[in-house]
Amino acid sequence: MQKPIAMVSLGVMALTLLALAAGVAWGQRYLPQPSPEPLALMPWPRQLTLEEGKYRLTTEFSVSVTGNPAPRLDDGAARFLRRLQEMTGLFLKEARVTTAPGRAAALRIQVNRPGAVRLGEEESYALQVTPQGITLRAETDLGALHGLGTLLQLVLVDEQGYYLPAVRIADAPRFPWRGLLIDVARHFMPMDVIARNLDAMAAVKLNVLHLHLTDDQGFRVESRTFPKLHQEGSDGEYFTHEQIREIVRYAEARGIRVVPEFDLPGHATSWFVGYPQYASAPGPYRIEEYFGIFDPVFDPTQEGTYEFLEKFFREMAALFPDEYVHVGGDENTGVHWKQNPRIQAFMTAYGLTSTEELQARFTTRVARILERHGKKTVGWEEILAPGVPQSAVIQSWRGRESLYKAARLGHGAILSNGYYIDLMEPAEQHYLNDPIPPDVALPEAVAKRILGGEATMWSELVTPLTVDSRIWPRTAAIAERLWSPGSVKDVESMYRRLAVISRYLEGVGTTHLRNQAALLRQLAGREEVGPLRLLVDLIEPLKGYERNKEGKLYTRHSPLTLIADAATADAPEARQFRRAVEEYLSRRPPSAAATVRRALERWVANTPALLEIVARAPALHEVRPMVVNLKDLAEAGVQALDALETGRTAPPAWAAQAQQVIDRARQSHGRTELMVVDPVERLVKKAAGQ
Amino acid sequence: MQKPIAMVSLGVMALTLLALAAGVAWGQRYLPQPSPEPLALMPWPRQLTLEEGKYRLTTEFSVSVTGNPAPRLDDGAARFLRRLQEMTGLFLKEARVTTAPGRAAALRIQVNRPGAVRLGEEESYALQVTPQGITLRAETDLGALHGLGTLLQLVLVDEQGYYLPAVRIADAPRFPWRGLLIDVARHFMPMDVIARNLDAMAAVKLNVLHLHLTDDQGFRVESRTFPKLHQEGSDGEYFTHEQIREIVRYAEARGIRVVPEFDLPGHATSWFVGYPQYASAPGPYRIEEYFGIFDPVFDPTQEGTYEFLEKFFREMAALFPDEYVHVGGDENTGVHWKQNPRIQAFMTAYGLTSTEELQARFTTRVARILERHGKKTVGWEEILAPGVPQSAVIQSWRGRESLYKAARLGHGAILSNGYYIDLMEPAEQHYLNDPIPPDVALPEAVAKRILGGEATMWSELVTPLTVDSRIWPRTAAIAERLWSPGSVKDVESMYRRLAVISRYLEGVGTTHLRNQAALLRQLAGREEVGPLRLLVDLIEPLKGYERNKEGKLYTRHSPLTLIADAATADAPEARQFRRAVEEYLSRRPPSAAATVRRALERWVANTPALLEIVARAPALHEVRPMVVNLKDLAEAGVQALDALETGRTAPPAWAAQAQQVIDRARQSHGRTELMVVDPVERLVKKAAGQ
Repeated sequence: MQKPIAMVSLGVMALTLLALAAGVAWGQRYLPQPSPEPLALMPWPRQLTLEEGKYRLTTEFSVSVTGNPAPRLDDGAARFLRRLQEMTGLFLKEARVTTAPGRAAALRIQVNRPGAVRLGEEESYALQVTPQGITLRAETDLGALHGLGTLLQLVLVDEQGYYLPAVRIADAPRFPWRGLLIDVARHFMPMDVIARNLDAMAAVKLNVLHLHLTDDQGFRVESRTFPKLHQEGSDGEYFTHEQIREIVRYAEARGIRVVPEFDLPGHATSWFVGYPQYASAPGPYRIEEYFGIFDPVFDPTQEGTYEFLEKFFREMAALFPDEYVHVGGDENTGVHWKQNPRIQAFMTAYGLTSTEELQARFTTRVARILERHGKKTVGWEEILAPGVPQSAVIQSWRGRESLYKAARLGHGAILSNGYYIDLMEPAEQHYLNDPIPPDVALPEAVAKRILGGEATMWSELVTPLTVDSRIWPRTAAIAERLWSPGSVKDVESMYRRLAVISRYLEGVGTTHLRNQAALLRQLAGREEVGPLRLLVDLIEPLKGYERNKEGKLYTRHSPLTLIADAATADAPEARQFRRAVEEYLSRRPPSAAATVRRALERWVANTPALLEIVARAPALHEVRPMVVNLKDLAEAGVQALDALETGRTAPPAWAAQAQQVIDRARQSHGRTELMVVDPVERLVKKAAGQ
Repeated sequence: MQKPIAMVSLGVMALTLLALAAGVAWGQRYLPQPSPEPLALMPWPRQLTLEEGKYRLTTEFSVSVTGNPAPRLDDGAARFLRRLQEMTGLFLKEARVTTAPGRAAALRIQVNRPGAVRLGEEESYALQVTPQGITLRAETDLGALHGLGTLLQLVLVDEQGYYLPAVRIADAPRFPWRGLLIDVARHFMPMDVIARNLDAMAAVKLNVLHLHLTDDQGFRVESRTFPKLHQEGSDGEYFTHEQIREIVRYAEARGIRVVPEFDLPGHATSWFVGYPQYASAPGPYRIEEYFGIFDPVFDPTQEGTYEFLEKFFREMAALFPDEYVHVGGDENTGVHWKQNPRIQAFMTAYGLTSTEELQARFTTRVARILERHGKKTVGWEEILAPGVPQSAVIQSWRGRESLYKAARLGHGAILSNGYYIDLMEPAEQHYLNDPIPPDVALPEAVAKRILGGEATMWSELVTPLTVDSRIWPRTAAIAERLWSPGSVKDVESMYRRLAVISRYLEGVGTTHLRNQAALLRQLAGREEVGPLRLLVDLIEPLKGYERNKEGKLYTRHSPLTLIADAATADAPEARQFRRAVEEYLSRRPPSAAATVRRALERWVANTPALLEIVARAPALHEVRPMVVNLKDLAEAGVQALDALETGRTAPPAWAAQAQQVIDRARQSHGRTELMVVDPVERLVKKAAGQ
């Protein structure tokens, strides 16, 4: 028997050690990697065993399917073949599943039954690559699609061409609900954004697209029952019924559920522009230009409100096939409820002592409406209250207490706290955010109700041009957290693979790399942007809610084409520099000293060219101080390194001056911050003997 | 009176000279250009006078509209303001047309009447920028939209920020039909491709989108009357009625007509997959996998054919509002007509002596059908025959004789010969292709019937990923040919402005630059692609019909992600090098010698890094010989330059060897060719005293 190895992505050395440690049976060897990249699968499979040999990709490559899959597998296989051709440039003779009788296909897929795109459906698969051919077995076509995705990520190169390494994989997800929320309300995201992100989601085995369709800034779905919702509640940008059907079809073809969110009772300004009669304050209303938390809220005391919602949800229940509908429930300020004497009287009459209790009453009635239309409710953690049906799924966003509380109370629960990718935190932070970390002990029945989680792409500060650069590649790390075993958590391995997957996703269609380059060209007003790119690779947008301080800096119309929009989380050069400094300070290897010095000198040398670009581009003037600060910082770093390398302690006067440079470099400019200040400070302090 | 200056784009020196030559009135000065780019308008306006001063762009910028425009102007102004914000990063206080009463807007637009998006509508405008404000006057909102486009192209920068130079422009198009054909049949082009190309078309004042909707490889529009057309005649990719309406709406909002083409009677295989009964040979039919000219053709002798087309065009006439419908008519081989005894008998019975005569009869009946549905006919030049109604517009593609012949016969005529952008010829060639060059003398009434022209983006060898890089920026040069006075034809000025407009179009949304970079990353399998880019900037895809020799290399499914797809027409570094060599050989200035030498040495120095990339990327192996050839060629060039600079004639043996290097470098690899062989050969020959 061969023992599986859960992680072989740590480079050849570690891989070999792991192989030995696992007591690999005779006949298996761990390949030296002839390609520049070792295996870079993401999410990492549950079980993976590398074997000896390579399956060579040629123009003869072909796919056959046996068993009883849903028709989506044929299209999925055609997409797989197209992607394989695009990646390799091979002119395959067959562009679709082989129908030629008798011919043995290179890839033989066996599926037992059609999969249904719904929560909890079987998604496992088993893959075996040998030098002679490939077999992919799955209970459902959904599992087979995942296996095809893994195969594409397995493609490697050597001197002779493209190949798949001989490998044996048995894979299945840890959690059944692996989602991405896209907020199409604050900034509308048109069809092509949704389509390419569905492709990318499928590529990293995510299976839920949560569409945040309504909010104070816009109502983004056509309602034929109440047409003023989209007509007056939006700026003209919304999904028609046909488009929603197309999204659902596109997602379902890729094994992805679409969960629509209609945020109630708060975050509801856009509903009231056309239908003020269901609000708790008289109006008139107009869609919000700014972002934040606003008071407009449904009136839960009128029967008319429920009649309206009954008709509305009847329409939407027919439009969205998934068994879940998300009703929001978050951030109701209660202000308009408290200000309305009729609502106050209602609360008194029914003995409701808080607006939370009133909201629970509202939510319960809405959940009953959905039940009548065959739907279960999902809501943000605020809906967790007595009376809400146990079938409701709770989405935790403020902390993870509500996750466990909901599960203990018998609810399904999903985690979004820690997966707020709009806050521009590093991938590492999301990656290590485990829904059920080892130190949380839950009874098995409770743990099973932790269904998974969702990355949330709130769209206050993104447009179709930049949204991919916020979602990807970080969401691939979240996808791994939700798919792979909890033991897969090596951050360095994650970042190494993430760099490969980032380019892989670009091939799938995401624009996170190419649109950044386009933004830099526009900012610089020229085609050659190397010096500017170096700066952007060292800075990140302000994190958390700092960038749009107090919600007052940006409106729906503000340009999002400045340096903060070109910058991304995980500034790549900054991360490498921090690692090099850490290595240098811990072990002082000469190689790390050289790496650190090369980086610092490169930043200094880059300054004149960068200043020239900045001078000619008024939109970049805001970062001029940062360019100077970076140069000063880098020079201080070089001096510190000089001192450390010669073994002399730097004088206190120098250290004091360097500290001023460091403090200046910490100031943000253009809503961004330099991500290399801390490591230079460490060098300086060390050099000064502090 | 101020005399207008037709061309001030030749750089500051030439500009000043022109100004002096034109006898500029007191009070006007020609600005030294503080920005890195002088004015880069495209198409160049009919009349332009630079004046003194600058209008500074600030967050207070605003737009007012008076007069009687169509509602589209309000949305156009909002798009203008969004684009202005994106370009400058200015957080404008007003995102739409100003409604504040009494306040004087920065830009005041005056429009006399609503424009209708139809052939011949008034499109002129007059623009005046002063340091105090901007006025834009136009007869119709279509003219006003053009003026807004010109304003965006006028934005310049200096040390203080963004501004518009004081200028007076009176502009109007030379031709009323300025089109781009997009072939969505061979490779389908989804909505986002169409939308972004409509935006780009509007930015260069093109006003006709010609959708080539049907061909042997696919039927790309939903037919509710005959659903098997799109269901069986395509691979599932086609425009629904809703999508067509959205395209028409999107185009009309930008002043662009949509002319649909249904190619008949040949190029019609896809019609017959579902409806073989209207073909001239029995079938069965399947959509073509390869490209070329095929025999399937409508049977023009059956009444059923015309009944079918009557119903089909009734549906399409309602779907497409433009008064013109294109019925193709090209490349009917006549083979199936000759092979069908019944059709032969028909021809004999009606005294038709050629298949051309039979086709004329068919076309005439189809034109009558269209007339009944309120439409005029457009067709490729083959339809020009007795009987075809004079209202039919003739599209010349094989040569320009048919253009003048059609116009002399009373037809409107448009030119596409010379505008086949799929053939990958340089922009210069299209630019100098004047529909009515100075040496063609036409009576005024005939000349007026030359309506304009269309660039044609045939899609055999493009996908949504690469199509923009074939259309742009070259189509901007064609747009200038069709809009600007014929006297505007300085090729160097065109190329200088084209480089700026190329980036401008990227801001508008085209993907020609960013997707090229994405392709290079995929090909190289890494993020840093500098050495590969240098090669790509020196090569071009094989031109004309050479790349897909005899139509046998590519099918609809072939990958178009190889080096030939990353390469573009007008390889930028190659063009600069050719110019430098020309300058060097004509006048021998030391600066040109240095430029030539620097380039040659750069190519040599690039070789090891490039070979390393190629070695690791099997999809690039096909260009390995070219990398070596380029190095040998560059070394021969350096040696030639050495000889020329020292004034010694190089020995014949060296010249013979160099000639071998040159001949080798002329061989194509990866369906591309090196575009710097000729200039090196000139250097070598000169050095050898030949």
